[in-house]
Amino acid sequence: MHFAVLVFASVATMTTFGLDNGLMRTPPMGWLAWERYRCDIDCKNDPKNCISENLFIDMADRLFEDGWKELGYVYVNIDDCWSSMERDKDGRLQPDPNRFPGGIRRLARYMHDRGLKLGIYGDMGTHTCGGYPGTTLDKIEIDAQTFADWEVDMFKFDGCYSNAVEQELGYPLMSKALNATGRPIGYSCSWPAYQGGLPPKVNYTQLGQICNLWRNYGDIQDSWNSVLSIVDWFFENQDVLATAAGPGRWNDPDMLVIGDFGLSMEQSRSQMALWAIMAAPLFMSNDLRTISSGAQSILQNKMIININQDPYGIQGRRILKEKVGIEVFWRPLSNNASALVFFSRRTDMPYRYKTSLSKLNYTTGSYKFTDVYTGKTDVLKDSTEFVVSVNPTGVVMWYVSAPGKLKYHPFIREGKLHGPAYDAEENTFPRVFL
Amino acid sequence: MHFAVLVFASVATMTTFGLDNGLMRTPPMGWLAWERYRCDIDCKNDPKNCISENLFIDMADRLFEDGWKELGYVYVNIDDCWSSMERDKDGRLQPDPNRFPGGIRRLARYMHDRGLKLGIYGDMGTHTCGGYPGTTLDKIEIDAQTFADWEVDMFKFDGCYSNAVEQELGYPLMSKALNATGRPIGYSCSWPAYQGGLPPKVNYTQLGQICNLWRNYGDIQDSWNSVLSIVDWFFENQDVLATAAGPGRWNDPDMLVIGDFGLSMEQSRSQMALWAIMAAPLFMSNDLRTISSGAQSILQNKMIININQDPYGIQGRRILKEKVGIEVFWRPLSNNASALVFFSRRTDMPYRYKTSLSKLNYTTGSYKFTDVYTGKTDVLKDSTEFVVSVNPTGVVMWYVSAPGKLKYHPFIREGKLHGPAYDAEENTFPRVFL
Repeated sequence: MHFAVLVFASVATMTTFGLDNGLMRTPPMGWLAWERYRCDIDCKNDPKNCISENLFIDMADRLFEDGWKELGYVYVNIDDCWSSMERDKDGRLQPDPNRFPGGIRRLARYMHDRGLKLGIYGDMGTHTCGGYPGTTLDKIEIDAQTFADWEVDMFKFDGCYSNAVEQELGYPLMSKALNATGRPIGYSCSWPAYQGGLPPKVNYTQLGQICNLWRNYGDIQDSWNSVLSIVDWFFENQDVLATAAGPGRWNDPDMLVIGDFGLSMEQSRSQMALWAIMAAPLFMSNDLRTISSGAQSILQNKMIININQDPYGIQGRRILKEKVGIEVFWRPLSNNASALVFFSRRTDMPYRYKTSLSKLNYTTGSYKFTDVYTGKTDVLKDSTEFVVSVNPTGVVMWYVSAPGKLKYHPFIREGKLHGPAYDAEENTFPRVFL
Repeated sequence: MHFAVLVFASVATMTTFGLDNGLMRTPPMGWLAWERYRCDIDCKNDPKNCISENLFIDMADRLFEDGWKELGYVYVNIDDCWSSMERDKDGRLQPDPNRFPGGIRRLARYMHDRGLKLGIYGDMGTHTCGGYPGTTLDKIEIDAQTFADWEVDMFKFDGCYSNAVEQELGYPLMSKALNATGRPIGYSCSWPAYQGGLPPKVNYTQLGQICNLWRNYGDIQDSWNSVLSIVDWFFENQDVLATAAGPGRWNDPDMLVIGDFGLSMEQSRSQMALWAIMAAPLFMSNDLRTISSGAQSILQNKMIININQDPYGIQGRRILKEKVGIEVFWRPLSNNASALVFFSRRTDMPYRYKTSLSKLNYTTGSYKFTDVYTGKTDVLKDSTEFVVSVNPTGVVMWYVSAPGKLKYHPFIREGKLHGPAYDAEENTFPRVFL
């Protein structure tokens, strides 16, 4: 039991590293307007899709009625272009009166009445990226208080129209200001994306102390190229990024575009699988009123959501890049389990990839696995060669567990976590295990 | 009636320009193995997908039973990797005995018994691209005769492992040899793709006289990037290419990858629409045994197939490129009709594109249009402003006709065809109208 105790103790210890608001111990899940609805304020000609309270009410109804909420998708998040162009006479942000006639507090209560949460957006700078009033340093306290007064549950702080010094001051100040309101408000920081996403400019230790999640990289677009560029960046920089993540503090590779226009079903399964490996926030940006059953079933896959929401909160990694275009990703999970993703970058036909668990650095033993998309289950010895057929731009994803009870966590030896790709660089492993 | 007579007379005259085998007066339709199945010869481990007679029989059964044949999808085409590595003792090509134990003639008869046709593949050169026996100049007659003996209906002649001089000799020789067999065999030439696709290296007048269709550009892959690169190339070079096409002689932008792994539904609708505008051969390369109903309904869209198969056989063009990422394509059709495609290159959200038929160079009058994907029908005056909402990477496609009977073809004035983008360059218009 020695090692299990160590793990639990470390998980407990780690909480002190995260933003001390007790929120988002697993990656937040919900819906966010930006990618799909942008700054569409044309309610006259496009009433069903414009940024208005009706849009968020529609999505809340869908989350509540179509099985999303029970799976954890509880945040309904407003992005840019919600506010009036002018602050009110007391200097407070106010919603556009035509598009949000009921006000934000009423909208928040609509969410709360249904067990949902409301997120809102602001910008550290003179203007939001869309040109609406920004939050300069002198406005941070009043804006934090306004959001708390409105009973908002999450706040995304963008970084257009500010410089590095202002950001250096503003992002921590907002963290303090939100905490000072006494209301638990999840805090999403776009700061590192404005710093290039990497140390030494980005201080991930500090970010983990002031933000619950942060955008490291550029905005996602509704295209497979965009998803791929994000996947590339996050896994090329996984040594830096994975250690930054843990309960209460998450790297955010941006929204899920599953259910939109640009991804095939295979590509949708790939985004879902890789976001789960990354322990990424799962914010859909799509039209839940018209989503296809295929896309819905991918987003509502319970086993993948469980992997994403694993309580250890360890961000997974790419452990293999084969020249034939197959890549393998791995994430250690609680209960002696792990997740494996076999991903194909090919654009020709399904590739029959032959390997064994021992080749993927699993220790001697036999393992039960479940294919999370097909439900197929089997038991494999570490040494048994097997073939997975991976579709072009698609994945095969397994939940792997040791059948029966293992005495020790299969990835922990001598008090340190071992596993695919870690032997060479133990020191970079998430500190929860060190 | 003057102009209508002119058009009909021209269509009749034009036949003398095409390959004189009377075949493929509209673009050929069917199924072709390459993109989806490549050179998979591993029948031991992948029996359902390897290049074998079983694969072509399976596809024939699906074409015959699932409504494809009635829509015009009649060719079942073998590509590379079908043959034995050695010619027989008489110097003839022979199929791999393990993968085609029944032989090609029996396979052809299987097709003919079901109202289908069989296509086969060869290579002008020492080897096929996959390394199988090629057809050197001295083998052209015997190979043409072998295909005729086997009762094959179409022949694709690739160009790996030969030089420009050999190709210059070989492609016309094969045309003569096929004709000399007395069997009507549709002739697909990869020649121009090996010449870079453009004059002066490519002589499209000659191609129209010796081939029924020709590959101008690189192989398609199962990705939206690949489809886009093909669309870009064909429409950037439309002035050269469109004039080369007509009944019996077609530019071939390569296979439809709808139903495979890389395209979203929107992108699938776009490929289908743009291939119809291009008067392109419609060869699917997919798994008809497992195709989704969504992909099937796109490929089986009757109105788009009718546009593709329009008897005039005029290849359409891009008539507008808007800075916002919307492009408009147009193809004149028989019966005073035309097809319009509004295409979005955006990757954000549906774009509301405002225009009018007069802005698209339609002459004064009122027009009936049908949205080929939704079935929505309406009547528009040329001057009426309208909005089409075009999804990211998607299309809106209209079949446009003049309600009631027009005295004159709406695109013909003073004996010459006018239309979007043609006013500036009448001389490049398909010669059928000159």
